[in-house]
Amino acid sequence: MKAINVAILGTTGAVGTRMLEQLEQSNIEVANLKLLASARSAGKQLIFHDNPVTIEEATKDSFHGIDLVLSSAGGSVSKELLPAAVESGAVCVDNTSYFRMDPNVPLVVPEVNPEDLSWHHGIIANPNCSTIQMLVALAPLDRTFGLKQVIVSTYQAASGAGQMAWNELLNEAQQHLNGEKETASILPVSGEKRHYPLAFNLLPQIDVFEDDGYTHEEWKMIHETKKILRHDMDNSDLKVTATCVRVPVPVGHGESIYIELEKNPSVSNVQSVLESAEGVVLEDNPRKQLYPQPINAVGKRDTFVGRIREDTENPGSYNLWVVSDNLLKGAAWNAVQIAEELVKRDLLHV
Amino acid sequence: MKAINVAILGTTGAVGTRMLEQLEQSNIEVANLKLLASARSAGKQLIFHDNPVTIEEATKDSFHGIDLVLSSAGGSVSKELLPAAVESGAVCVDNTSYFRMDPNVPLVVPEVNPEDLSWHHGIIANPNCSTIQMLVALAPLDRTFGLKQVIVSTYQAASGAGQMAWNELLNEAQQHLNGEKETASILPVSGEKRHYPLAFNLLPQIDVFEDDGYTHEEWKMIHETKKILRHDMDNSDLKVTATCVRVPVPVGHGESIYIELEKNPSVSNVQSVLESAEGVVLEDNPRKQLYPQPINAVGKRDTFVGRIREDTENPGSYNLWVVSDNLLKGAAWNAVQIAEELVKRDLLHV
Repeated sequence: MKAINVAILGTTGAVGTRMLEQLEQSNIEVANLKLLASARSAGKQLIFHDNPVTIEEATKDSFHGIDLVLSSAGGSVSKELLPAAVESGAVCVDNTSYFRMDPNVPLVVPEVNPEDLSWHHGIIANPNCSTIQMLVALAPLDRTFGLKQVIVSTYQAASGAGQMAWNELLNEAQQHLNGEKETASILPVSGEKRHYPLAFNLLPQIDVFEDDGYTHEEWKMIHETKKILRHDMDNSDLKVTATCVRVPVPVGHGESIYIELEKNPSVSNVQSVLESAEGVVLEDNPRKQLYPQPINAVGKRDTFVGRIREDTENPGSYNLWVVSDNLLKGAAWNAVQIAEELVKRDLLHV
Repeated sequence: MKAINVAILGTTGAVGTRMLEQLEQSNIEVANLKLLASARSAGKQLIFHDNPVTIEEATKDSFHGIDLVLSSAGGSVSKELLPAAVESGAVCVDNTSYFRMDPNVPLVVPEVNPEDLSWHHGIIANPNCSTIQMLVALAPLDRTFGLKQVIVSTYQAASGAGQMAWNELLNEAQQHLNGEKETASILPVSGEKRHYPLAFNLLPQIDVFEDDGYTHEEWKMIHETKKILRHDMDNSDLKVTATCVRVPVPVGHGESIYIELEKNPSVSNVQSVLESAEGVVLEDNPRKQLYPQPINAVGKRDTFVGRIREDTENPGSYNLWVVSDNLLKGAAWNAVQIAEELVKRDLLHV
């Protein structure tokens, strides 16, 4: 496999630092690595394969000679810089939401719809963290039993809102334990008027509200799921609804998922399909108190599925509990995994 | 209203101490108060209306002359002592699960089915904490629009497993912040083989597992809901399923509830029914980032409802977010509220 030139855009964030780590651990042979960030971080150094790499300020001229861009610097930065990167011949895997619903941009989870990589035009979008882990668990069931409806309630970690939100949770927790008042200035949404403590609390708001009362995070889970599982068909055959809640966990999203299938398999049939599914680790043994937990998923690339139960009053309906590291499979690893697929399929050209 | 003799059984626990506090704040005129607990606590004193009351060891002979027993000492204690209390003429409001599904025992949420108090035979059961707050929110919608199906995912506080579990969460949180290993010895279930940290984690196990893979907590939510809303009819017209998860919150349960109604009201119709419902406080204003949060519900008797959204792909289906203080409306206040109803309806006799 020929070595390629890679740029990481937004390399200092919670996801960017993990993109660097996941790239280092990937099968991608890197000739030259460019680390790009805001002017604030320019000049700092990070280590890649034991060599220091100096961070440069990201501009439209940063991409000459770059084959692959891994981007996680925010939607406005992606909007401004990625077209320039494509212009200069790079293929971009973008972790922001900016291009996800663009009909000319594939939205890809490699275990689910790698074939969509073939029609990219220079930009491939990485789905929302909550959507990715849900679809790693549901796509194998969709293929085998036919998915009719999804009703999901999320338990999302603070790091999904970035490193600052993660730090805020830990600071608030210590303040609470000291009997002090928590000082919230970031969560639930940094741009919003009101901020509430997450430590020892629950915040049923992730991202801003839409006019219909759903949050944009809930909107993403609904519409990204349909684009990924049904982009080439009539969406209306798959019903999806979501309630997204931020919980006082640093890393690792949990999801309580209720699904209705076209067929009516036994729980053990569902388990065996998931057991052999790529990217899934089945943790479902009540007798041994084995079920997915965020603290066990941190640092792993897999999606963990357990608590599989049939709703016997609704034949063909099931409850599942799904956990994954939102910074790895939910972001950095899924992006690097897409890059590995692009190289493998010789699709690393505009 | 004539003064009555009251005994609190299990008076030193997280719920028992709040039963004492809620009784003090209630409209019940107490002639004599007896505080009963295990031998371990006998001799200690608690304050009731500025007077110290000495705790006595609970035995079958503790109930002579007692009109009302508020019980929260665990199922085995209720099983052993409450029949003796009834025998000696007391009416018992029991917070444990022991008598809840007994066809001769009413299971009551005063805002929902106070009429069931009329057929008691000396024992009235207080429902599970998660069931109570869900039904305070859903019963008004059931009465007005007809409830067909409930799919609930819970976000349950540590105190639902008792004072020791609550302490364990706070200890683990400090251990985690100190960079030490968390020492879990109680949660998820004190009687179980394995214990896992709750701090900064999620535990999808509350109570022990049934053979079908549901936990007993999930079983309680399903079957208590049917007994309370449909005890006198065919249960099969109401479908209920639940996934119960323990979250790192000290007090205040959250619930993400998906319901299907017979009618198809607008969201504002649903809101106005809840706005005028007894025991409900509507907190549903996305523009003002107003929605229920555990830290705001602590110490309050109400059930807070918000994030009401229609699932437009499933006409007649809605998502709701419900929060309440699991130790008050979920336990101590609901029990004292039942006692107030028994006095008001002159039902305080066997």
